[in-house]
Amino acid sequence: MKKVEINDFERVDDLHRNGYMLIQDPKRFCFGVDAVLLSDFAKAQKGEKVLDLGTGTGVIPILMEAKSKAEHFFALEIQEESAEMARRSVELNGLSEKIDIITGDIKNADDIFPLSSFDVITTNPPYMENGGGLKNGFTPKAIARHEVLCSLDDIARVSSRLLKFGGRFYMVHRPYRIADIMCILRKYKLEPKIMRLVHPYADREPNMVLIEAVRSGKPMLKVMPPLIIYKDDKTYTDEIIKIYYE
Amino acid sequence: MKKVEINDFERVDDLHRNGYMLIQDPKRFCFGVDAVLLSDFAKAQKGEKVLDLGTGTGVIPILMEAKSKAEHFFALEIQEESAEMARRSVELNGLSEKIDIITGDIKNADDIFPLSSFDVITTNPPYMENGGGLKNGFTPKAIARHEVLCSLDDIARVSSRLLKFGGRFYMVHRPYRIADIMCILRKYKLEPKIMRLVHPYADREPNMVLIEAVRSGKPMLKVMPPLIIYKDDKTYTDEIIKIYYE
Repeated sequence: MKKVEINDFERVDDLHRNGYMLIQDPKRFCFGVDAVLLSDFAKAQKGEKVLDLGTGTGVIPILMEAKSKAEHFFALEIQEESAEMARRSVELNGLSEKIDIITGDIKNADDIFPLSSFDVITTNPPYMENGGGLKNGFTPKAIARHEVLCSLDDIARVSSRLLKFGGRFYMVHRPYRIADIMCILRKYKLEPKIMRLVHPYADREPNMVLIEAVRSGKPMLKVMPPLIIYKDDKTYTDEIIKIYYE
Repeated sequence: MKKVEINDFERVDDLHRNGYMLIQDPKRFCFGVDAVLLSDFAKAQKGEKVLDLGTGTGVIPILMEAKSKAEHFFALEIQEESAEMARRSVELNGLSEKIDIITGDIKNADDIFPLSSFDVITTNPPYMENGGGLKNGFTPKAIARHEVLCSLDDIARVSSRLLKFGGRFYMVHRPYRIADIMCILRKYKLEPKIMRLVHPYADREPNMVLIEAVRSGKPMLKVMPPLIIYKDDKTYTDEIIKIYYE
């Protein structure tokens, strides 16, 4: 592990993969189970080029680098403080040759990167529609959680332009927006191909949805068995333990 | 129970509700668990007018009559032989004042019934897109299973015109068509509001999806906990026993 500067207000968390660590600021948006599940759900093959849109602290490309043989990861983040933290985490893990963190706006991603150049795009976007419950203005957390700087429509539009024909788009989102997700992805020729609902307990409503869409894919959605987080005794299910630690 | 004519090739099945029976022809399309689940998932309140599109043998309005206080049920069926069987089942159960079976084409349903006149529309439509796996021509079973005489688009279009503002649309379909379902319903201002996936076993992929959409509803989908048919020991779950027999 390389030496990089860690500020007093930051913490360094163990990602339980390859010894990788992540620098986070508890006052800003910290990654959750959604990012971990997405990095496991998303598949990148040997030699593929991957782009993460709205990478925050870079958790998704760092975890995916540990789990895949992808050739290179690019990650875009609009908030410079988050991007800078992500760059230090990349350096801390010795991944500077594998992961590039770029500061920039998702809405302009199709100007930043060459069109039709990515095999895989991942994103853990803001879930809430602009205005939905937003009270505290454009704080770093609000930008990460609400569609104040970019919408699902923006993400789908640029993803469609940046993916190769047949390229895969992976997203984690909230189930209450499934109709939006399906219709907006289709609008941009990102055909939903796999959906997995994540339920806190087996008999409860899902609180996350994982989606794989394929650029110019044929209509035919595979809905996977439910992914359950906790057993009735409130311990993690075997599948979650495997995703987190094995 | 009234006396009605039963042909030698027909059978009379117990619906386990109010002593209601259903006349079916084993050579034609017979109802399955999907119709039973839809008739439980669909809610009709006291005084409401309900229309079932593509009713077949009439199983959905007959089951819903037993479970609800709806004022009146109309049911449309294009195949005269099925409609005629449905009419005899209605008479057999003494429901001639409550259920009307009309022979007609779903594509013209907005000419057959007054516009904006229904509180509830139910449908267990053909699942398969025209051409998908169709080999035996326009047999009665093929018409019930494949979109040869009407498509999901037709059903959504006429349902939107026939429902009152705020009226509810209930459908059972296949999960692999969820993207089609969401996009086609929205196209006709039927906003998906509730979705429930039906899994044969808790750890298996779903094989049915139940949908409630609301005419001119606001976007916000509630995804319910999974509905599981069988326990690991291959017996029905408590919820299925309740839906079928209690």
